[in-house]
Amino acid sequence: MTIQRLRDLLGDRLLTSDAARAQHAENEAWYPTALPDAVARPLTTREVSRILAICHEDGLPVVAQGARSSLEGHHLAIRGGIALDLTGMDRVLAIHPEDLDAVVQPGVTREALNAHLRDTGLFFPVDPGANATLGGMAATRASGTTAVRYGTMREAVLALEVVQACGTVIRTGSRARKSATGYDLTHLFVGSEGTLGVITELTLRLFGQPEAQSAAICRFPSVDKAVATVIATIQLGLPVARIELVDEMMVRGFNLHAKAGLPEQPHLFVEFHGSEAGVAETAAQFGGIAADHGGQDFTWSVRPEERRALWSMRHNAHAATRSLRPGARVVSTDVCVPISALAEAVAVAQHEGRARGLTQAIVGHVGDGNFHCGILVDPADAAEMRQVKAFTELLSDLALRLGGVISGEHGIGMGKITKMQAQHGAALGTMRALKQALDPRDILNPGKLLP
Amino acid sequence: MTIQRLRDLLGDRLLTSDAARAQHAENEAWYPTALPDAVARPLTTREVSRILAICHEDGLPVVAQGARSSLEGHHLAIRGGIALDLTGMDRVLAIHPEDLDAVVQPGVTREALNAHLRDTGLFFPVDPGANATLGGMAATRASGTTAVRYGTMREAVLALEVVQACGTVIRTGSRARKSATGYDLTHLFVGSEGTLGVITELTLRLFGQPEAQSAAICRFPSVDKAVATVIATIQLGLPVARIELVDEMMVRGFNLHAKAGLPEQPHLFVEFHGSEAGVAETAAQFGGIAADHGGQDFTWSVRPEERRALWSMRHNAHAATRSLRPGARVVSTDVCVPISALAEAVAVAQHEGRARGLTQAIVGHVGDGNFHCGILVDPADAAEMRQVKAFTELLSDLALRLGGVISGEHGIGMGKITKMQAQHGAALGTMRALKQALDPRDILNPGKLLP
Repeated sequence: MTIQRLRDLLGDRLLTSDAARAQHAENEAWYPTALPDAVARPLTTREVSRILAICHEDGLPVVAQGARSSLEGHHLAIRGGIALDLTGMDRVLAIHPEDLDAVVQPGVTREALNAHLRDTGLFFPVDPGANATLGGMAATRASGTTAVRYGTMREAVLALEVVQACGTVIRTGSRARKSATGYDLTHLFVGSEGTLGVITELTLRLFGQPEAQSAAICRFPSVDKAVATVIATIQLGLPVARIELVDEMMVRGFNLHAKAGLPEQPHLFVEFHGSEAGVAETAAQFGGIAADHGGQDFTWSVRPEERRALWSMRHNAHAATRSLRPGARVVSTDVCVPISALAEAVAVAQHEGRARGLTQAIVGHVGDGNFHCGILVDPADAAEMRQVKAFTELLSDLALRLGGVISGEHGIGMGKITKMQAQHGAALGTMRALKQALDPRDILNPGKLLP
Repeated sequence: MTIQRLRDLLGDRLLTSDAARAQHAENEAWYPTALPDAVARPLTTREVSRILAICHEDGLPVVAQGARSSLEGHHLAIRGGIALDLTGMDRVLAIHPEDLDAVVQPGVTREALNAHLRDTGLFFPVDPGANATLGGMAATRASGTTAVRYGTMREAVLALEVVQACGTVIRTGSRARKSATGYDLTHLFVGSEGTLGVITELTLRLFGQPEAQSAAICRFPSVDKAVATVIATIQLGLPVARIELVDEMMVRGFNLHAKAGLPEQPHLFVEFHGSEAGVAETAAQFGGIAADHGGQDFTWSVRPEERRALWSMRHNAHAATRSLRPGARVVSTDVCVPISALAEAVAVAQHEGRARGLTQAIVGHVGDGNFHCGILVDPADAAEMRQVKAFTELLSDLALRLGGVISGEHGIGMGKITKMQAQHGAALGTMRALKQALDPRDILNPGKLLP
């Protein structure tokens, strides 16, 4: 009945075949597949609005999907309903070079936007690794390697068009850089994981391409020493554009997956953006800090192909981690702590992982205090999954004790939902009140984010 | 009855004298005084919670107040009730130098925080001019002269403790620099103008004192040329820490009020933060851009006393504007537009002000596209007030047409409430739903922000 109404609206862009449903039921993490009743592929805001109005009337769940690169099962239709595939809404609507902003549809990927910007001297900096859609990145408050310099999607989104549960279309924010005109709806929808509304248009901040970029790599005798280098770098205010930790296991993964040929020791991968003189000065300062903490083989380069190779390797960390145990799935932790607590958090993660006999590789956006343990698991092995669950809970509790958060960038989705009460306490009631106010029939991505 | 319950709770920190009520009924703008029924001066979160629980039960309005430096009447108890004076909660609770953050009570002023930080090498950058309380600044999403470099209170607040309408105490955000753990309650309360909850604790980002600071001043043959200089500066990505426009009338005000002795022409006041070499290089680059646009008498200085004198003069713009027409009140406009539209917006403001015979001085945080017309009025002169109202409406409509906002930093309060529908359209319904969810009895600053 609802499906028929949607078919009347969308024609052959409403898919109910087993193949289409199965394609939209997969995920890159370890969650079981979850079949939607149907897949809707709208092309306009108006169609999204109609779809939601129909599903709202009939009480059918709607789960927005982009590139489906979520690591927390955000896009899985665990209560059935409609997989709202927004990848067809993939137009760059406007670039305003004078104002350093772009207006895009939600299905535009970050790589597509940057390809579009190639000749403008501008770029969009947020880089979670995966070639995610910008709508999905906003919905999950994604970040990645460049957040230490350019911020996360929280800072990158200036304005949104959102379709609410009942189908009403609203606009939040503006292209002006400041506003004191009421409730900050933009930030409310950024990170709401499709549970409060569906993003149908985004206005994003752009940046001028830096005059010069240089990348550096440095190995350390221990993770401790590498982390101490990061802390000193951040506290001295050195303007790094990226500063990434990889532990010895991660390097082994790179060697297996990308034939990196690196010594299997902890490394920092660093990037500097600025003027020619500026990046040289910063790289030299960073080299000095690293040397003070036992860093070796510090090398830096302004050659674009070397930089690209370095970050391509880093971006493939998920696949490289998998190569440490072929056939296994990766459970990725994602705690984020105040930088003063980073050394302790990483040390505990390494120690407790080892004590449990887990195979894991650590990578981290350590300039933000955020790091991931990629734990290799066989989801069918119940005992192993219990070990992993206990370990991830321990890390979450540690992050909370250290004044941090259970997720820096992957989000809650299904995975961390049981820790939301511990994270937020009474504020979880406030979140529930907001959900109830904006989605009273609970049709928007039900079963996610809020326990 | 309610008053008696509050007196039982607070003793002599519940004030009902005419003098105390009158003191809390004034404002710096042109709004009529508004007497609260009583003034409550809590010292703890627990007391704030009890006060709200009592007022919630009894349906009595509660209007949070800090330094009462609002220019939009935010703190006026226009429906009576309790003026909740938070200036007694004025302790700096913690400084975390390694993490570049501070935890403060809401009554701490920005100057008090910076005095507290003096020996740490750190500072809190947001600077609206007035020595406002940090709680008030967060509640109104304040910004000011340094936002172009350091952001506004939107970026400065990492975490909050908030007492909700019913008295429930919640914590939002954390000291970690990133989070993907559910709805962004911190940003929802920042800028909510006391209508969703009362802020009782703030965690704020700090910055390291720059190695060098320099200030520059430059006069221009026209506002157009000065604005063109700003646009070029921002579009080239020159790292200015402040870039402020003052028009010829504002300079006249400075000459009258501060004996500035400046030529009565439009000026830019600029500041650069960075390394010694960096500020020299940036100042030289800026000087070149200014010269290209007819800038004259460009001078820059690293002498702290010259810098302080410059910004002290700028901070007293409100008083200086008043000196242009002694006895008059100042109505300050506050539109913010995309930078590409700034020249048009300022030109229209000047032209339309002149056409209406209004006396006004223009100052602007022009790097953000935000500027103020300080219009001198006699609130008792109904015809003049009508002219001013028509002019401010025209500016608001212009800002909306140019893709901007009706308030960049002063907020909505009472003044711009009639333009909220035009600003937000259907999203105003979303804001109303949030207000209804979090303050169902409408006791929190009723009559403000939402029409």
